[in-house]
Amino acid sequence: MESKFVEPVLVLVLEPGLAGPLRRRIRERLGAYGGEVTAVEGTDRFYLEVRGEIAVLQSLSVESWSGVEKVISLGQELLHAAADPAVDSKGVEVGSVCLGDGSFTIIAGPCAVEEEQRTLRIASEVCSAGADLFRAGAFKPRTSPYAFQGLGEVALQILQKTRQETGLGIVTEILDPRDVEKVATVADMFQVGSRNMHNYSLLKELGQTSVPVLLKRGFASTIDEFLMAAEYILSCGNSNVVLCERGIRCAAATRQVVLDLGSVPELQKRTHLPVLVDPSHGTADSFRVPALARAAAAVGADGILIEVHDQPEEALSDGPQALTPDQFRQLVPQVHQIRAMLDDDDSAVTDDLVSTSGGEDH
Amino acid sequence: MESKFVEPVLVLVLEPGLAGPLRRRIRERLGAYGGEVTAVEGTDRFYLEVRGEIAVLQSLSVESWSGVEKVISLGQELLHAAADPAVDSKGVEVGSVCLGDGSFTIIAGPCAVEEEQRTLRIASEVCSAGADLFRAGAFKPRTSPYAFQGLGEVALQILQKTRQETGLGIVTEILDPRDVEKVATVADMFQVGSRNMHNYSLLKELGQTSVPVLLKRGFASTIDEFLMAAEYILSCGNSNVVLCERGIRCAAATRQVVLDLGSVPELQKRTHLPVLVDPSHGTADSFRVPALARAAAAVGADGILIEVHDQPEEALSDGPQALTPDQFRQLVPQVHQIRAMLDDDDSAVTDDLVSTSGGEDH
Amino acid sequence: MESKFVEPVLVLVLEPGLAGPLRRRIRERLGAYGGEVTAVEGTDRFYLEVRGEIAVLQSLSVESWSGVEKVISLGQELLHAAADPAVDSKGVEVGSVCLGDGSFTIIAGPCAVEEEQRTLRIASEVCSAGADLFRAGAFKPRTSPYAFQGLGEVALQILQKTRQETGLGIVTEILDPRDVEKVATVADMFQVGSRNMHNYSLLKELGQTSVPVLLKRGFASTIDEFLMAAEYILSCGNSNVVLCERGIRCAAATRQVVLDLGSVPELQKRTHLPVLVDPSHGTADSFRVPALARAAAAVGADGILIEVHDQPEEALSDGPQALTPDQFRQLVPQVHQIRAMLDDDDSAVTDDLVSTSGGEDH
Amino acid sequence: MESKFVEPVLVLVLEPGLAGPLRRRIRERLGAYGGEVTAVEGTDRFYLEVRGEIAVLQSLSVESWSGVEKVISLGQELLHAAADPAVDSKGVEVGSVCLGDGSFTIIAGPCAVEEEQRTLRIASEVCSAGADLFRAGAFKPRTSPYAFQGLGEVALQILQKTRQETGLGIVTEILDPRDVEKVATVADMFQVGSRNMHNYSLLKELGQTSVPVLLKRGFASTIDEFLMAAEYILSCGNSNVVLCERGIRCAAATRQVVLDLGSVPELQKRTHLPVLVDPSHGTADSFRVPALARAAAAVGADGILIEVHDQPEEALSDGPQALTPDQFRQLVPQVHQIRAMLDDDDSAVTDDLVSTSGGEDH
Repeated sequence: MESKFVEPVLVLVLEPGLAGPLRRRIRERLGAYGGEVTAVEGTDRFYLEVRGEIAVLQSLSVESWSGVEKVISLGQELLHAAADPAVDSKGVEVGSVCLGDGSFTIIAGPCAVEEEQRTLRIASEVCSAGADLFRAGAFKPRTSPYAFQGLGEVALQILQKTRQETGLGIVTEILDPRDVEKVATVADMFQVGSRNMHNYSLLKELGQTSVPVLLKRGFASTIDEFLMAAEYILSCGNSNVVLCERGIRCAAATRQVVLDLGSVPELQKRTHLPVLVDPSHGTADSFRVPALARAAAAVGADGILIEVHDQPEEALSDGPQALTPDQFRQLVPQVHQIRAMLDDDDSAVTDDLVSTSGGEDH
Repeated sequence: MESKFVEPVLVLVLEPGLAGPLRRRIRERLGAYGGEVTAVEGTDRFYLEVRGEIAVLQSLSVESWSGVEKVISLGQELLHAAADPAVDSKGVEVGSVCLGDGSFTIIAGPCAVEEEQRTLRIASEVCSAGADLFRAGAFKPRTSPYAFQGLGEVALQILQKTRQETGLGIVTEILDPRDVEKVATVADMFQVGSRNMHNYSLLKELGQTSVPVLLKRGFASTIDEFLMAAEYILSCGNSNVVLCERGIRCAAATRQVVLDLGSVPELQKRTHLPVLVDPSHGTADSFRVPALARAAAAVGADGILIEVHDQPEEALSDGPQALTPDQFRQLVPQVHQIRAMLDDDDSAVTDDLVSTSGGEDH
Repeated sequence: MESKFVEPVLVLVLEPGLAGPLRRRIRERLGAYGGEVTAVEGTDRFYLEVRGEIAVLQSLSVESWSGVEKVISLGQELLHAAADPAVDSKGVEVGSVCLGDGSFTIIAGPCAVEEEQRTLRIASEVCSAGADLFRAGAFKPRTSPYAFQGLGEVALQILQKTRQETGLGIVTEILDPRDVEKVATVADMFQVGSRNMHNYSLLKELGQTSVPVLLKRGFASTIDEFLMAAEYILSCGNSNVVLCERGIRCAAATRQVVLDLGSVPELQKRTHLPVLVDPSHGTADSFRVPALARAAAAVGADGILIEVHDQPEEALSDGPQALTPDQFRQLVPQVHQIRAMLDDDDSAVTDDLVSTSGGEDH
Repeated sequence: MESKFVEPVLVLVLEPGLAGPLRRRIRERLGAYGGEVTAVEGTDRFYLEVRGEIAVLQSLSVESWSGVEKVISLGQELLHAAADPAVDSKGVEVGSVCLGDGSFTIIAGPCAVEEEQRTLRIASEVCSAGADLFRAGAFKPRTSPYAFQGLGEVALQILQKTRQETGLGIVTEILDPRDVEKVATVADMFQVGSRNMHNYSLLKELGQTSVPVLLKRGFASTIDEFLMAAEYILSCGNSNVVLCERGIRCAAATRQVVLDLGSVPELQKRTHLPVLVDPSHGTADSFRVPALARAAAAVGADGILIEVHDQPEEALSDGPQALTPDQFRQLVPQVHQIRAMLDDDDSAVTDDLVSTSGGEDH
């Protein structure tokens, strides 16, 4: 009988001289979870090649079984998010904008919706300066329960009006699976914040919709965890996921957050999903935002997410990291110029990808 | 007119020689948020003492305002969780057990409810070995959407039966605010896992109940953030919150997690809430669990949370960190013996607290 | 009598209602260390403004003294490294190259000197591709005592020859204060590696010379510690210090190292020293090096340090992060193009700096 | 011909279907570094078992070679530090004290030698309270070059006198390889501080002596790196190395340092070297030191290192983490009591070690 699994997903290195009954026991236990095992005899030990459902097999913690010295994982765990070299990514459409289609997308706006006139004013400013989408939070996850939590439904109405007046698509944060339907009436794109990247109930709920999701990396999450969080949404049927690097926590960094721009080429190698960068949260300092936004363009990201406020000192949240409309207006052509330079220099991007394996064979 | 705010909560150090109109502007803006300002004239600059609602004033990011050189925060932000030296903590009752009343509580059980017979068997084992409460997850937050997610409602029924048969109170994880009512039919105590410490929608929902909550520290969260998460629950009306240190992520640590036992005296100084320690997640290695469990007792924690499985190699999740019932049985008297030693030596605990200020008064 | 200290360097916020004798005791103790104290009376407490030698006063841990509630530090601790807005940095000359004079400097070469012909070949390649200086280690700090430790004095001779043949200035690592004289016979610039940033004996010894020093940031060191390490060299009399960001350790990052590009604008705000970036160690993956090198240019760094090897797979150290000469040749024009774009757009850099205070000027 | 290498140290998993010439090339390159290769044929790929010098083979970065999919390391890299289950550790003798022989050793004293009378007074206090060895720094590595750097040679004379008067052996820090001979005239044990764990020139120099070395873990170093640093000393001929866990840097921890007590059982599993714990640097808060010192005893450490100062507020360095002599006097019996409890309960320690593999043998 032919196996449906072509390649092994695990290879177990057994302990030297392991007795037959113990080997058998390991094979049986793998078999109980659908693992098809081929034993390969080495000099003094056996190697077991295991074919099967990688997610099931990996959850067995085989590396801690008696008689198993080491385990190598060979398989692809990302059933939906994985990069497919044979297929060009088409990008994710949000209103009339397409993220990840080769263009450089700029999402801008205040941290939170504060009041109607201010929101409309900022939206109008960022629109004329070149923003592609508008961001502003109606529901805000704050460290303190006593801090401003967002205007909630009132904010949703303001966002509705903002879209009507400016034509900009709306990106806004979702915190609670019970709010999905309500927020979807206004949002062109849901934002999942850093603190909710591991909120799998929320991710599953968003996976039931077809609304695009901007998924931010957890502030202490690895790339593997980040991609698996995307996989939660994708595996529920919503293929419109965009990743966003927003900085990770690190004791040595200024303000204890460091924007991990190295994650961009790493993610682009491993997934077909568009990758954005948020230099506002990634620096928490408005004075450093333009430099890091340019760096995001230079590193090859598909766009940026920038906080803009007309009076940063008066912002009800995150003021210290907001650019003024003027600062934003000055930044936009810089990032587009860097991006254009990279596009001209086709070879730049191509060759980076070609050298992916970490070394050519000469 | 008398102020209702006795002590200033912020002191602003203004820039030297700051002009009067700029000072006025700062005072007015503080006033707009209820801040009562007293200016104190220094040699070449002013200090502004600000009285008012600390949460409101702190959210203003005053440190980034023009003309403000530094800001000192003096106030107590923890309206409910703060330690009150005048009041002895009464502890949190869970069924017939009281956590934080001076006793040392042991919560034990498997990571997940896997099947009825196994669950009952493990419960019976940990009960006879000295566990005070039984833990096991019905809903599991897993990094991969393809890994075992818990048995859900079936598991709740098994837990129901487990309580009937063993008499042990049930501690089980809650992931979704929509499940609160359902899980509450079985749980004597909700567990909020590390990945959901920042899931404020869930915390608010739990705050609406009176069911005790075991709140685990986020794996990259500071003590301030941890206490504020507790404050979310407490401020909604549920005073039955127990904190649990479970290790923080660190590149240098073995398996990249380090149990922060230093958080225990720190939390005990700052809050009246009971503090537990989870050495299973804090080491991720069963062989290190007993040593760290003893350390948790020695450091003065109010109890421990221990994963126990009768066949760790066959566990569907977290097997490598589970103790066997025999290992658990051996551990129980050790932690109680250390705790008894501390209780005998009254002075030990007392003197640690007395020296809190980090220096003698001479 | 006039004080020589114009501005206070510390402000102590005393506890409310602190008794006179305790206040006097604090003032006396400050006085014993040269602190000139002015007491300012607030509503219910005193503020003490302290003038004096900041380094001395800061080492007193005043924040833990009885009666002191909070301490604010106002002074500039960087006596030599601090940015002086009134003075344009002239840069640091290394042979015929000047780092930090507005140009973008590229230092390239293999991790270690491996053998003469290979070293000369790589040097010739990077020279023709546009490198400004050549880097290669004669002495290598390796995690294992059994790994290749560098060719030592033989390597110094090869480096000597490399300079003669290519005309490139030589940057090479120094590990031991006893080797300073010997290495100085060959090096145009000493490199202090990440693991030795806190090796103050070495830094003091280098401070006795006038040879330029490329000081790499410790892999878990803060910006404050980094600048203070530079201050060790500067305060001994050697003003030729160049800083190099090379990535910091972080559990969440790929390969557990993240290049902290946000440190570049931060350092440029705080110091007049040139700032380079090392994307090779900052990614540890050759496939990500070009993207991060471009980002370093976009963020405004004064140059980059790049590992290049003609056969990365055969390198005796750090092969996986080395570019081939061809990859390097392709990268050089990209970084110069980004840099030129920034220079054209004068306003970009200027405005970033002007907005330093994180807020508008009202 | 018989190989002198019994077990393979690396297993290479080649890419599926890798062509013969490429396989040959890999084998040849391994052979060039003394690797003896046995090819094992799997279903669709080859496994190469490689015997040879592990340090040499590991430095080749084989995992990045073309055609190599994964590499498993099987060998023991610690040639001297490795635990040998067949041999009981004899411990390290320092004067009349033996560390790691089953006793619990307490090393106490001020951070730095400040002046003669104070030093003698503190030494006399800690001696009568039960300290086994006296610690105090003559040379201090300080973040700022302007902070107190230690009294240097004057301090060495004071330490000499202290030993004469109290009989306590002296533990003191060494910063510079050029000071080894001088410090050895006074020190019964060298201390290598956290910042110098990676200062391999210093470690090699200490390896040339036979004076015991207390090697502190780097504040961001992994256990592997820590053991390799010990291996630098051991491989140079000095077998008297004692390890000391002192806390690692972590953004989430209070004061950004967390004492990694989980490293103690991990180190004890992997090495025969004694393991001490420094709760003073590991908390940086005197009020938390007693709790963490008790935890160090409970976790099974071979001793502790405690900072004691008679007037912590007046200490020239590290005052906030120093215990007073009275606090120290109270702590000593507690740690001994916990240790005695563990010794009585033989099974406690034994069983922890037996379960080392992380799973029962079924």
